[in-house]
Amino acid sequence: MFAGVSAFPLSPLHDDRVDADALGRLVAGAAAAGVDSVGVPGSTGVAQYLTRDERRRVVVRAVAEAGDVPVLAGIGALRTSDVLAHAHDAAEAGAAGILLVPTSYHPLTDDEVVGLYADVTERVPLPLVVYENRRTTSVAFTDDLLARVTALPHVVAVKVPGAPGDVADVTARLAHLRTVVPAHVGIGMSGDAFAATALVAGVDTWWSVLAGVLPGTAVRLARAARDGDAATLSALTDALAPLLHLVGPRGGVRVAAALAEHRGLVDGPCLPRPLHGLDAAERATAVASAEAAERV
Amino acid sequence: MFAGVSAFPLSPLHDDRVDADALGRLVAGAAAAGVDSVGVPGSTGVAQYLTRDERRRVVVRAVAEAGDVPVLAGIGALRTSDVLAHAHDAAEAGAAGILLVPTSYHPLTDDEVVGLYADVTERVPLPLVVYENRRTTSVAFTDDLLARVTALPHVVAVKVPGAPGDVADVTARLAHLRTVVPAHVGIGMSGDAFAATALVAGVDTWWSVLAGVLPGTAVRLARAARDGDAATLSALTDALAPLLHLVGPRGGVRVAAALAEHRGLVDGPCLPRPLHGLDAAERATAVASAEAAERV
Repeated sequence: MFAGVSAFPLSPLHDDRVDADALGRLVAGAAAAGVDSVGVPGSTGVAQYLTRDERRRVVVRAVAEAGDVPVLAGIGALRTSDVLAHAHDAAEAGAAGILLVPTSYHPLTDDEVVGLYADVTERVPLPLVVYENRRTTSVAFTDDLLARVTALPHVVAVKVPGAPGDVADVTARLAHLRTVVPAHVGIGMSGDAFAATALVAGVDTWWSVLAGVLPGTAVRLARAARDGDAATLSALTDALAPLLHLVGPRGGVRVAAALAEHRGLVDGPCLPRPLHGLDAAERATAVASAEAAERV
Repeated sequence: MFAGVSAFPLSPLHDDRVDADALGRLVAGAAAAGVDSVGVPGSTGVAQYLTRDERRRVVVRAVAEAGDVPVLAGIGALRTSDVLAHAHDAAEAGAAGILLVPTSYHPLTDDEVVGLYADVTERVPLPLVVYENRRTTSVAFTDDLLARVTALPHVVAVKVPGAPGDVADVTARLAHLRTVVPAHVGIGMSGDAFAATALVAGVDTWWSVLAGVLPGTAVRLARAARDGDAATLSALTDALAPLLHLVGPRGGVRVAAALAEHRGLVDGPCLPRPLHGLDAAERATAVASAEAAERV
């Protein structure tokens, strides 16, 4: 489930309120471009910054705009009762699945992480994607932890960090992950900078920030990888390199916000304070890189 | 401001609801034992796990129970508008000051941290304590960042992590911090395992988890340090060593919860899921250590 390109759009704010129309445009644009699923609100969708009601409205609007494209609802929160409330709202809104990152303030033990997933999978029959984000949480999934969590019912896929290296390296990484998780669990990677390699290596899902703001380019890149069109793939990754080099130090959310703001997809600064956007030079780099990719 | 022993009690939950009576007992107990201030909800008070209304009720109840002891209200949250709402509620509730940790999901840049403190200090005239918690946030304060933030108006003190080493080491660390922050800003340290050394070295404030659950012992320890009573100080730190050794790997919040649960100060498991408490062996260690300290 959720194979292919999964787009993670921003949840744009305007004057500290969720701009549902702007969110709707991003989702509709991704669906029209041919992404295979849409994830809202994810990390890029600033899920952890939103209230329960804001999150519910984001999922409802995304389902309305996504047409036949399945919507994966991010349900992560610090407190299990909030996670369960988000899962309830996601089911009510018609989400096709739920995405759970083990967010922490007090660092979680492995047993606490397993307990969180067990509490959710016992109570919520929706397909669940296990989400590791080492950048934003203190949780790194060991093989043992990944095996314990993916053995729970309703787990359909994992979202793990992109792997560095060449195609052989990532192929080996995927083969190793295959020995860790059950066969029915899809293996997907985030980290747009590693996406081309991961796609060629045969990853099941590309969990993509890029596809939330530049869906046409992301879909072209994934199709070039699938079709073995090395020339197009290389031209796209070369064009996108300056943009993707910004993601590591500045975070995908800030890069996506800069592009969405530049293109008028959102109404002015769209991140929740205290987050600031890119500076002017970084914005120019991201914009030029995106435009170069669209000319490929 | 806020010099001496500042107690950070739990915000006990029962069936996923804040048990205001149990919180009231902890605050009243700390005040009766002679602590100099009470901080609610802090990291130990699981602030980040609570709703705005829960946090407001915790501060209101603490003010009611603390008598003449000033209450410092924790206002940290991911979104600046929530931080400001908590500050508003703290002022309404009669808090003497506010404590702000720069919590993050997307890691904050230094400029974003300064922006957060600037947004709050521009709008809220309450005395503010700057709070660094490297364990639970991704923000480490460099000297430059600490200087920029403590130069803002209304900043009265800092809460920085405890420093390892002997009295000479910590004295040197305090002298260095004195060159970084303005003279009117108090320097306090958290980290109960380092407290005895920090107190002898002359720290302005001991921000103490221990004082939230074992206030009598914490106050005795601080007085022994102040009075140069080396025999009592040594006996207390020896007795507390097994308990304090648990804090590093397991977190002060779990140790405090185990003690409060054992002593009937709270009604059953009191941490928000997914947090679990200590295991049975760890609980026994903590309880025995606390009792040994009380026999000193």
